[in-house]
Amino acid sequence: LTTKKEIQENLKKFEKGNFDTVPDPDHLQHFKERAKKKEDSDSVKTSSLQETHDAVSHDHPMGKYTLPHPIWSEDQLHDVQITHTPPEGFVDKLAFFSVKMLRGGFDIFSGFKVGQRNEHKWLKRIIFLETVAGVPGMVAAMMRHMISLRRMQRDHGWIHTLLEEAENERMHLMTALQLKQPSWIFKTAVIGSQGVFVTLFGIWYAISPKFCHRFVGYLEEEAVKTYTKCLEDINGGPLKHWQTQEAPDVAVRYWQLPEDATMRDVILAIRADEAHHRVVNHTLASMKPDQFNPYKPGK
Amino acid sequence: LTTKKEIQENLKKFEKGNFDTVPDPDHLQHFKERAKKKEDSDSVKTSSLQETHDAVSHDHPMGKYTLPHPIWSEDQLHDVQITHTPPEGFVDKLAFFSVKMLRGGFDIFSGFKVGQRNEHKWLKRIIFLETVAGVPGMVAAMMRHMISLRRMQRDHGWIHTLLEEAENERMHLMTALQLKQPSWIFKTAVIGSQGVFVTLFGIWYAISPKFCHRFVGYLEEEAVKTYTKCLEDINGGPLKHWQTQEAPDVAVRYWQLPEDATMRDVILAIRADEAHHRVVNHTLASMKPDQFNPYKPGK
Ligand SMILES: [Fe+2]
Ligand SMILES: [Fe+2]
Ligand SMILES: [Fe+2]
Ligand SMILES: [Fe+2]
Repeated sequence: LTTKKEIQENLKKFEKGNFDTVPDPDHLQHFKERAKKKEDSDSVKTSSLQETHDAVSHDHPMGKYTLPHPIWSEDQLHDVQITHTPPEGFVDKLAFFSVKMLRGGFDIFSGFKVGQRNEHKWLKRIIFLETVAGVPGMVAAMMRHMISLRRMQRDHGWIHTLLEEAENERMHLMTALQLKQPSWIFKTAVIGSQGVFVTLFGIWYAISPKFCHRFVGYLEEEAVKTYTKCLEDINGGPLKHWQTQEAPDVAVRYWQLPEDATMRDVILAIRADEAHHRVVNHTLASMKPDQFNPYKPGK
Repeated sequence: LTTKKEIQENLKKFEKGNFDTVPDPDHLQHFKERAKKKEDSDSVKTSSLQETHDAVSHDHPMGKYTLPHPIWSEDQLHDVQITHTPPEGFVDKLAFFSVKMLRGGFDIFSGFKVGQRNEHKWLKRIIFLETVAGVPGMVAAMMRHMISLRRMQRDHGWIHTLLEEAENERMHLMTALQLKQPSWIFKTAVIGSQGVFVTLFGIWYAISPKFCHRFVGYLEEEAVKTYTKCLEDINGGPLKHWQTQEAPDVAVRYWQLPEDATMRDVILAIRADEAHHRVVNHTLASMKPDQFNPYKPGK
């Protein structure tokens, strides 16, 4: 075992797309049919990613092996409210103030509020924000993992929830990318922001996990506002065509959407995810780091 | 939703140990009975962790919400061989040389080879090595997550395998800690090593993921050697009493061991895990970072 030969055989099998198959989730077969249908017909391409049209990618579609995450009911999707948890004490206020400053600065810098909103501007905003949103969960999970290792103590069940949040945000990004590919200026801005945010958030988490989770709680309050606004623009504004535009395959698979799902269904699911992260992070911020995480995998 | 009140209610429910219950894995009920039995009888305590005897911890035992991981059959447990993948090219050779240097240095520095081996020395060695072993998977997962976010490209399914490895190594550590609590000198050494290793491995991963996975592949070759030696000491050496010593509860739960499992069964399971990481990392090292990961969740 682990000989050169075994590795070469593994790789050969893999190159033929021939690794042993696990029972696929029900919706996967449906996805394959859907993808095939799309190729057969001359329907409008909603995806600009080369990948989707690569024959090989059907063997390993994006979002096939994701962590457990909530699948929202119709009621839950429409029940999401804009809420606010009043800050209590210095740490909370600092977190709230930081988020308000960041949002204000971003609104000015991105030019989102100047002139008419449109699909291009919405996608730019969503993609940028989601490249940032995937950072805190992963950094926090890594910090707790490393603390558990070096203090030689149990983690109290937080890590899986933080990883689920990180992956969920990354899936928001993967979904939005199906509609638009970023320019190089945009890519540069993303790389710069990540460098700054990963460093700062890592330092903050070492100093005050409470601040960090409260900060994310407030970020998610803003995210719910943003996606509620987006839904308004879908219901009767510049994004009206998202009422009928087909949902990307990765979104259908990830949120287990019906075959005829639209971009509106996708934004509803994303908003429910954000509302979920909001209550999770506000709750974690109100707990001691050695209390047991009440959120179960996928909940 | 997400109001102060909701959070307070969540926390109150949680303090009563009263979060909604998911169907537990079969072995969990068995675990509870086992733990109860242990308390009732005046059997020798194999655990020195306060926690195990804390009534509350029965509501959230360690290792309850773990990522999927292989459960080994009798055949697989005993089939594990010491193997070596010959290094090919400069990067492989550098990785091999680094691991050989590290192992040699550690053997001298730790004094493991001086005098008679015993349980105390074995546990010190295992605990220290496992605090290090949990680092690469988490760092690599984080790096790939961040790369996916900032390049705005899919991950090709590697992250889950790396997270599973990281958690698996952390569970090795949690298991060993049930038998021995580290001294403060030891704790200081662990903190220092983690600081150095996290930094170096992060930099290496940014430069050459191939080097990193090959490095872990070679580390795991050494790990299999170490645990094979440990089994020899169990079968007819200074660890003979591990043939009958009860396995810690966290191990019974995590590897789904039978009720009468012993420390020998635990070491067999850990060795099989290490052999699995060995082939996984040697395979990933031989792949391009944008090829699809052939390992499925828990495989
Ligand atoms: Fe998001
Ligand atoms: Fe979010
Ligand atoms: Fe290990
Ligand atoms: Fe290992």
